[in-house]
Amino acid sequence: MTPPPTLAILAIGDELTSGERVDTNSAWIASKAAAMGVRTVEHRTVGDDQPRIARAMRDLAAQSTLLITTGGLGPTLDDLTRPALAEVLGSPLVEDPEALAALRKWYTGRSTPMPEANRVQALRPESARRLENPHGTAPGLAATLGQARIFCLPGPPREMCPMFDRFVTPALQAAPQMRVHVRIVPTFGLGESTVADLLGDLMNRERNPVVGTTASGGIVTCRIRYTGPAADADRLLEESIADIRGRLGPAVLSGHDPRDDGLALVRSVSDLLRQRGQTVATVESCTGGLLGEMITRLPGSSDVFAGGLLTYTDALKARLAGVDPSLIEQHGAVSREVALAMAAGGLERTGADHALAITGIAGPGGGSEAKPVGTVWIARACTKSEPEARRFRFQGGRDWVRQWSAMNALGMLRLSLLEAHCSLLGES
Amino acid sequence: MTPPPTLAILAIGDELTSGERVDTNSAWIASKAAAMGVRTVEHRTVGDDQPRIARAMRDLAAQSTLLITTGGLGPTLDDLTRPALAEVLGSPLVEDPEALAALRKWYTGRSTPMPEANRVQALRPESARRLENPHGTAPGLAATLGQARIFCLPGPPREMCPMFDRFVTPALQAAPQMRVHVRIVPTFGLGESTVADLLGDLMNRERNPVVGTTASGGIVTCRIRYTGPAADADRLLEESIADIRGRLGPAVLSGHDPRDDGLALVRSVSDLLRQRGQTVATVESCTGGLLGEMITRLPGSSDVFAGGLLTYTDALKARLAGVDPSLIEQHGAVSREVALAMAAGGLERTGADHALAITGIAGPGGGSEAKPVGTVWIARACTKSEPEARRFRFQGGRDWVRQWSAMNALGMLRLSLLEAHCSLLGES
Repeated sequence: MTPPPTLAILAIGDELTSGERVDTNSAWIASKAAAMGVRTVEHRTVGDDQPRIARAMRDLAAQSTLLITTGGLGPTLDDLTRPALAEVLGSPLVEDPEALAALRKWYTGRSTPMPEANRVQALRPESARRLENPHGTAPGLAATLGQARIFCLPGPPREMCPMFDRFVTPALQAAPQMRVHVRIVPTFGLGESTVADLLGDLMNRERNPVVGTTASGGIVTCRIRYTGPAADADRLLEESIADIRGRLGPAVLSGHDPRDDGLALVRSVSDLLRQRGQTVATVESCTGGLLGEMITRLPGSSDVFAGGLLTYTDALKARLAGVDPSLIEQHGAVSREVALAMAAGGLERTGADHALAITGIAGPGGGSEAKPVGTVWIARACTKSEPEARRFRFQGGRDWVRQWSAMNALGMLRLSLLEAHCSLLGES
Repeated sequence: MTPPPTLAILAIGDELTSGERVDTNSAWIASKAAAMGVRTVEHRTVGDDQPRIARAMRDLAAQSTLLITTGGLGPTLDDLTRPALAEVLGSPLVEDPEALAALRKWYTGRSTPMPEANRVQALRPESARRLENPHGTAPGLAATLGQARIFCLPGPPREMCPMFDRFVTPALQAAPQMRVHVRIVPTFGLGESTVADLLGDLMNRERNPVVGTTASGGIVTCRIRYTGPAADADRLLEESIADIRGRLGPAVLSGHDPRDDGLALVRSVSDLLRQRGQTVATVESCTGGLLGEMITRLPGSSDVFAGGLLTYTDALKARLAGVDPSLIEQHGAVSREVALAMAAGGLERTGADHALAITGIAGPGGGSEAKPVGTVWIARACTKSEPEARRFRFQGGRDWVRQWSAMNALGMLRLSLLEAHCSLLGES
């Protein structure tokens, strides 16, 4: 049995090591490979330095069956991928006549003479193969070093991506028994360690499929990974998803969207509203518009988002949302009563089916002993059912209090649409 | 003389190697280090696999004087940075009583019992030091391996970044003659290449101080870097700032805030409003709350932000902001007339001194030949002067159209408060 293919990715460029630019190529390549069942074992980034590039190539080719490099194929003195590859292959650089002809043609098509500097882009290690680049002057290179196949692609994504699809994809087919299949299950409402407790043995590293978790922006994502033939994958992964659903209940967000983009909760709420032909309005104080902004990050949100009121000051809580000023005087702006009045005002003023209202103390100022920074009241109202309000105590600074407030408002709406309950939300 | 410090960065997590998430921590860390004159020689990313993490730690610690790792410090079975560090240090994991106390305190503050799983986060290799994490349950670790200092930080940026500033920055200081002093001058309203043209010789790489530029989220930041003794630094840097101000005029945002946090424009507008004792209200369509959210990211924004209206649908433009429906019928929702009516409605409904209104086509759907995706009208109204409206044509997808819309609304308000003009804003 051949070993499963493994991929290593090497990004090359001083602008990457220095942090001036974030490398997005490596993640793109890795997710493409993952979709084909090939596991990426390492990403590495080195600067424009030939010995370092050569050392990284040798090292990565020794521990994976595929190595993809990006960058360092331009025409200037600091583009060193070609000589570094020649060095590790022990193969001299020669001028490729086809590459030179393609370069000249590129410039002829643009009615410009070819700058002499670009001639180096026609060089390739004698034992390497040239990969055509229809979108730029830098051809790619393919070679074999020991057990590993190496593909060197240019750095700009609009050149790299089509070359990857054309030349690298065919090399990424794993032996069927060893293919890796991944599913994503986003959750909201339980902390990461609670999720891990509930998942229990599913997270055992020896298990296949094995489940891992990551937390980001309030979403805890379960990642199920199965290594084996495609024929069994769907069934086993679906079994695991069903098992996770059973253990985590309504915390599991619908969709299993493969994009881990932090919008799983918004997407879930929007889908539920769209299925019901209903709309939501927002009435925001301490979040200042974040909740509306989150909902409208998704294209087509006008189906489900009516609009809202930003009632940042007490005066505007009264003026825009019709909150009785005596309620604010009696209970304070951050209170169950005011949150409920804001939500009721939102329903009435916008004509939406649901309204979410947030009033809280984001900090750093404005806290008191009874209502410390992070105290937030969130209310939900609906034209067809009883309103509810919950109090939360968030930690972690202004940005985080605001983020959690918006997320939990969506969480409350989601649970009410599902007619589910989740004990881990704030006190009601 | 000791050799200059060099930095290697190791990011840990299956979600990174698999490409499900792009690693932004490493670039952030590298640019922080670069600003202090420390060169990053390599970034590496490995999955949740103890032998691979340990191997990468050993390898990177052998070739740099500083190694920073991010991720893998969570409470679950796939968080393996702690045991990997113990392995390379040859130092057993012990429970740190202070870490355990801090964990318990974290949960007590949240009125939740500590899940048993989190107890592993109190473990540290016996020869390592614990680094306090005020924003999460994962403490960091610091240790020495051979010639290298190792810092292990948690993965979430809001936990990692403050810990970097507090614990790692002191370790990044070079010798006094080689110390790097940096000032930041944020600008808005000119493109990066226009800024570079105007800066001219100030950007010459041999100059000291030298000026560089970076663009992010609409803000073009000039970064002035002086290498040399502290005694001369302030004077030389202030001279360069005055020179830049002279060349870039009102595009330079006030403050020179050292935090390059993307809030320079909001901070500038808020300061100008606060100096005048005035307030602003927002009326947002395609941005869905982003403009209000941006203004309220700053603590104390209730001094200058009254509130706003999210008029996402045509119906709510009329109902909430009093826009005459015939205007929408006649000119379309994305038009000068509707933008001006939204701004006027914002003034009238909120009683603020200024109102900013945004109506546009964020995409991907909804465009036409006459009004392609990215067409945005922004209006500004004021109780004391004539209103104005400008049309913009933004590129780059939904998120970017929304971001530019909010930024340019703030830019229009800023220039009107300064009574300045900037030809590079949209057509009026």
